[in-house]
Amino acid sequence: MKKIGILGGGQLGRMLLQSAINYPVETYLMENDATAPAAHLCHHFTKGDITQFDAVYAFGKGLDAITIEIENVNLEALEQLAAEGVKVYPHPTALKIIKDKVKQKLFYQTHQIPTSEFVVTESTADLQQHLAFLPAVHKIGNGGYDGKGVQILKQASDFEKGFDTPSVLEKMVDIKQEIAIIIAVGNTGQTAIYPPVDMVFDPSLNLLSYQICPAQIPEKVFWKAEAIAINVVKKLNSPGVFAVEMFTDVHGNVLVNEIAPRVHNSGHHTIEGNFSSQFDMLWRIMLDYPLGNTANISPTALVNLLGDEGYSGPAQYEGLNDVLNMDNVFVHLYGKKETKPGRKMGHVTIMSHEKQELLHKVNQIKHSLFVRSA
Amino acid sequence: MKKIGILGGGQLGRMLLQSAINYPVETYLMENDATAPAAHLCHHFTKGDITQFDAVYAFGKGLDAITIEIENVNLEALEQLAAEGVKVYPHPTALKIIKDKVKQKLFYQTHQIPTSEFVVTESTADLQQHLAFLPAVHKIGNGGYDGKGVQILKQASDFEKGFDTPSVLEKMVDIKQEIAIIIAVGNTGQTAIYPPVDMVFDPSLNLLSYQICPAQIPEKVFWKAEAIAINVVKKLNSPGVFAVEMFTDVHGNVLVNEIAPRVHNSGHHTIEGNFSSQFDMLWRIMLDYPLGNTANISPTALVNLLGDEGYSGPAQYEGLNDVLNMDNVFVHLYGKKETKPGRKMGHVTIMSHEKQELLHKVNQIKHSLFVRSA
Repeated sequence: MKKIGILGGGQLGRMLLQSAINYPVETYLMENDATAPAAHLCHHFTKGDITQFDAVYAFGKGLDAITIEIENVNLEALEQLAAEGVKVYPHPTALKIIKDKVKQKLFYQTHQIPTSEFVVTESTADLQQHLAFLPAVHKIGNGGYDGKGVQILKQASDFEKGFDTPSVLEKMVDIKQEIAIIIAVGNTGQTAIYPPVDMVFDPSLNLLSYQICPAQIPEKVFWKAEAIAINVVKKLNSPGVFAVEMFTDVHGNVLVNEIAPRVHNSGHHTIEGNFSSQFDMLWRIMLDYPLGNTANISPTALVNLLGDEGYSGPAQYEGLNDVLNMDNVFVHLYGKKETKPGRKMGHVTIMSHEKQELLHKVNQIKHSLFVRSA
Repeated sequence: MKKIGILGGGQLGRMLLQSAINYPVETYLMENDATAPAAHLCHHFTKGDITQFDAVYAFGKGLDAITIEIENVNLEALEQLAAEGVKVYPHPTALKIIKDKVKQKLFYQTHQIPTSEFVVTESTADLQQHLAFLPAVHKIGNGGYDGKGVQILKQASDFEKGFDTPSVLEKMVDIKQEIAIIIAVGNTGQTAIYPPVDMVFDPSLNLLSYQICPAQIPEKVFWKAEAIAINVVKKLNSPGVFAVEMFTDVHGNVLVNEIAPRVHNSGHHTIEGNFSSQFDMLWRIMLDYPLGNTANISPTALVNLLGDEGYSGPAQYEGLNDVLNMDNVFVHLYGKKETKPGRKMGHVTIMSHEKQELLHKVNQIKHSLFVRSA
């Protein structure tokens, strides 16, 4: 059996290992927290810091392949492992580009991939030169995640919220829709593309509120988005699973917002909604099997379960029975012992061929299920 | 989080733990083989003999609930645990009846549940009194499993194949179809019934060849089978998931063949084919959540992958890429290192609304995928 390692033990690792159960593979996982959501689901658990060279190198040495569930890992160790013949998903050259939002934006520019206008800022002093560029979004180059490391700057007085480290300042786009496309790239460059997803964000938390697949977008926008997404992953030149997040505007333009070089929240609905889920797909790639079928079994909607505002401590799920009583609904709880405001604690997928039913149940779930503490 | 234990670490435990990943639950597993299919997927693994009182009692003490993936467990320890307040699925009183094929047959008789005619035999000497009863099937009372402990007796010369221990001799039924119904029973006695499954057996191995859900049976037979299956589990008076295997004959009669008081091979298609799988359902019961939705998402067929004749040793999957290339097909390999003839190594589920497509792909899979050794 092939030996395959995962760096990080959160919900993405958890769902990856859930999917690995269908295949003959010996699984390894490294994570600092031995009680993390994925820690108990592998053959071999290593407690270690995924940002440290020595830890990552020692973990990966001797494995057939290694993947990540978060970008914030030690890149140099992955480069060393790749040089020594361990297959790394995504390839470190792609991870290096994506991990740093400054490099990511310059990559789009180099390859003429449509994206919002931007300037690179080195410091807050530098940032203040760009008053004329506002309103804009300031994104930290390294270390941002899940809405952290992002600030909206509308006027001069907002500059104090900016980052005093290399960052990008992106011109505010008049967004009509946010969509995401999951794409799989095999070891010989073959691709498989999932139907696009409509992402509806909560503006205050800058976190996904719910998503619907397939996205309702005009045909022209659909073709444009697919072509751009394929182009992005081709230029990254790496096998793996990628999420390409895009904006559409009222003129039918499509702009790349961000790429994730891994399984992604915007693909969680594929567990029930598609013949091959994003997690299944990554195992197929890493085990050198054929790519899976990305077609929808049914349209889906997905609601993230976030820790409710004002509650920190041992997690309790209020209203869970109501949601488990719904007929075509799938509950995924990540088994995190502690909740805190905005923490991703689970998600719920709804399957239906009726869009009204999807939206109705999204609403029901958002108003009945809460993650709180005693 | 509730602490729930599983006795046995084979593929049923593996798929149970795969399903547990959706819920907050602390999982325990006891199994003698630390490399068994399910052994690495729990929070707490105990190496131990599930047929020994002390091992099972020590394992179960302190858990909230305990379940089994095989009937051959220490019943007395489960009785003791139940008496001390551990919830046992199925209840030991039900397990005691089902575990022993003699008791099981007498249970049907007591409750006027239709089943084939039978006599109880205490020994081979006793057996030979029943020549007029042939052709018949001799089933060992205790310890039979997956076609072992079953002999077809057609004539006097076959008596030497019979069992010299308490057994049942069942009159041969003129079988039209073999069907199975999975039923879930909640903690307060509420039931949820899955659509029936057509089971097509390999006559030489007495093992399932393939199955199709929903079964194509006349409406009257359908209602009769459902009514009988519900009656059986009501009389067993235990929460849990049950598989009721039945024969139908050319006259439209339905006879109960056997019950399994646990998740069962005849329910594996529910992982993809139904909104709540049999595995999901058992967790819902053990975690005291509402029962799930048993409706089909789509009709399915299922092929078991058995170790090919003539091969014993490290497992290799010949033709796997061909099957992974099929569009609406789901491969489940159980991660067993060693194959041997007839060993259950995995299964493949096919989803389609077209019966011809289901049968066509069953055939393709049976002729292209083989578990062999080097």
